[in-house]
Amino acid sequence: MRREAQPRRLAGFATIRLIYGGICNTDLELQRGYYGFRGTPGHEFVGEVVEADDRDWIGQRVVGEINLGCGECDWCRRDLARHCPHRSVLGIVKHPGAFRGFLTLPLKNLHRVPAQISNEQAVFVEPLAAACEILDQVRIPSGACVAVLGDGKLGLLISQVLKAHGAEVHQYGRHREKLKIARAAGVHTIVIRNGKLPAAKYAWMVDATGSPQGLQQAVGMTQARGTVIMKSTTHGLARIDTAPVIVNEITLIGSRCGRFEPALRLLQTGQVQVDKLISEVLPLEDASLAFRHARARGALKVLLHA
Amino acid sequence: MRREAQPRRLAGFATIRLIYGGICNTDLELQRGYYGFRGTPGHEFVGEVVEADDRDWIGQRVVGEINLGCGECDWCRRDLARHCPHRSVLGIVKHPGAFRGFLTLPLKNLHRVPAQISNEQAVFVEPLAAACEILDQVRIPSGACVAVLGDGKLGLLISQVLKAHGAEVHQYGRHREKLKIARAAGVHTIVIRNGKLPAAKYAWMVDATGSPQGLQQAVGMTQARGTVIMKSTTHGLARIDTAPVIVNEITLIGSRCGRFEPALRLLQTGQVQVDKLISEVLPLEDASLAFRHARARGALKVLLHA
Repeated sequence: MRREAQPRRLAGFATIRLIYGGICNTDLELQRGYYGFRGTPGHEFVGEVVEADDRDWIGQRVVGEINLGCGECDWCRRDLARHCPHRSVLGIVKHPGAFRGFLTLPLKNLHRVPAQISNEQAVFVEPLAAACEILDQVRIPSGACVAVLGDGKLGLLISQVLKAHGAEVHQYGRHREKLKIARAAGVHTIVIRNGKLPAAKYAWMVDATGSPQGLQQAVGMTQARGTVIMKSTTHGLARIDTAPVIVNEITLIGSRCGRFEPALRLLQTGQVQVDKLISEVLPLEDASLAFRHARARGALKVLLHA
Repeated sequence: MRREAQPRRLAGFATIRLIYGGICNTDLELQRGYYGFRGTPGHEFVGEVVEADDRDWIGQRVVGEINLGCGECDWCRRDLARHCPHRSVLGIVKHPGAFRGFLTLPLKNLHRVPAQISNEQAVFVEPLAAACEILDQVRIPSGACVAVLGDGKLGLLISQVLKAHGAEVHQYGRHREKLKIARAAGVHTIVIRNGKLPAAKYAWMVDATGSPQGLQQAVGMTQARGTVIMKSTTHGLARIDTAPVIVNEITLIGSRCGRFEPALRLLQTGQVQVDKLISEVLPLEDASLAFRHARARGALKVLLHA
């Protein structure tokens, strides 16, 4: 294992020794120079606290919310540091990330990992929280039918979260192997052939394609007065025909990071399965190889271990 | 006055003699060949019933909802014929419009015009209902600040509706003369200079620009977790950077036709002023001249009288 110097720890912060990091599509985009971030990437992690003002934290296994708010604005006061306009973001905006031996985060960002959750599972808490965010934003009635477009890492977490919520979930994707993971969770899966998708079928849609075309496709699958949850962070301009959105009075909702509590609960109770989402585990020293593998077609989550 | 033959009236329908028709941007787009509609345009009108199964309607001054539902689907049963997938639409989809001597509509689409509302005002009921639709879709707290981007015909109705609802309304536009109409209604108006618009300022935004760029501009003016109501029906693809929508978790809501009742009430009580929105009144024979004038920069509503 490479021995990194511990970063400087500010008051109120913990120093955390990395156990596992997970590579997310955002990390791949950062590598392409998007968002203008220079420095250590990595925002999905599980680690062990090695330094903190409060000694109770030392030795604790933790995951951490990635947005560091100013602590003083209206957003921070409403416990929504993830929308603080002055925020930095672990491994994304002005705060060094998790893909090295040690990282720092404010103690208030940390969550202890319950014993029932393995390290390999805990590294999924951050993206799983982003999937859970949907249920904080919209009131999907239990039993309602929801379609998820896309069968990537995030799409497979989203379909499981919605299934655990009690929805009837239809997942559309191009990868038979990936869809199998959703099917094991009771999700109805559909392999897309020749780009054919149903028209105006769903009252609830999630675009998790990760593609600039996904939004337009999701709108086409949505009923009048239906809702599309936008989970595809892609860089650059998407083209969208706004006419069907307006004529059919469709609602589009942007959705990003979520609270960690529901994600921890879903893992602790075994309602969401993440083990099959791991494509590969590589040592931190092989980070650039891991990034290449994460980019490959068919890859799911690539983990880095320290 | 040109004498048109009366169109054939089906059971349940009324034949209406046109008094005034109003030219809407959609009519201008239809003229350009959009939506593939061939036939008589015109969906904003006030008229007098000359034939109906129920004789009580004869001689009544009426306005009419423009969507003709199948009457049997779930949407129609929920009184939402405007989303019936089998609907025809007066002067837009498979039903001859109002810009001729006579038109027909189902009796259930008609609303009597109260005596306090003049003919010139009544012709605004349809677009005013579309403005009111916003308040049926989103719960804007009374006293909340709402920005309207665009100072066209629809934008000026929207700002007045929101003002009457009790909102603090900021209207952004390029036309000092048009904004004056909003200012008279107590709306705070801002003339856009050099394309400069405030960033992330509003929790509630309405895009009423009628331009494909409007949506992107409106998103830029919206706070995190804010809402953009999409009122710009433009033809063709809009380009939108979805990243700020997702990162800031913004909600976009398509909005089209509305119920007529709130619009009639606002006109009857004088809470919305439409007289100054009339640029010109021309006889039906001069419809093509009227369309040219309606297209001119700075034009507001051009009316046709029979």
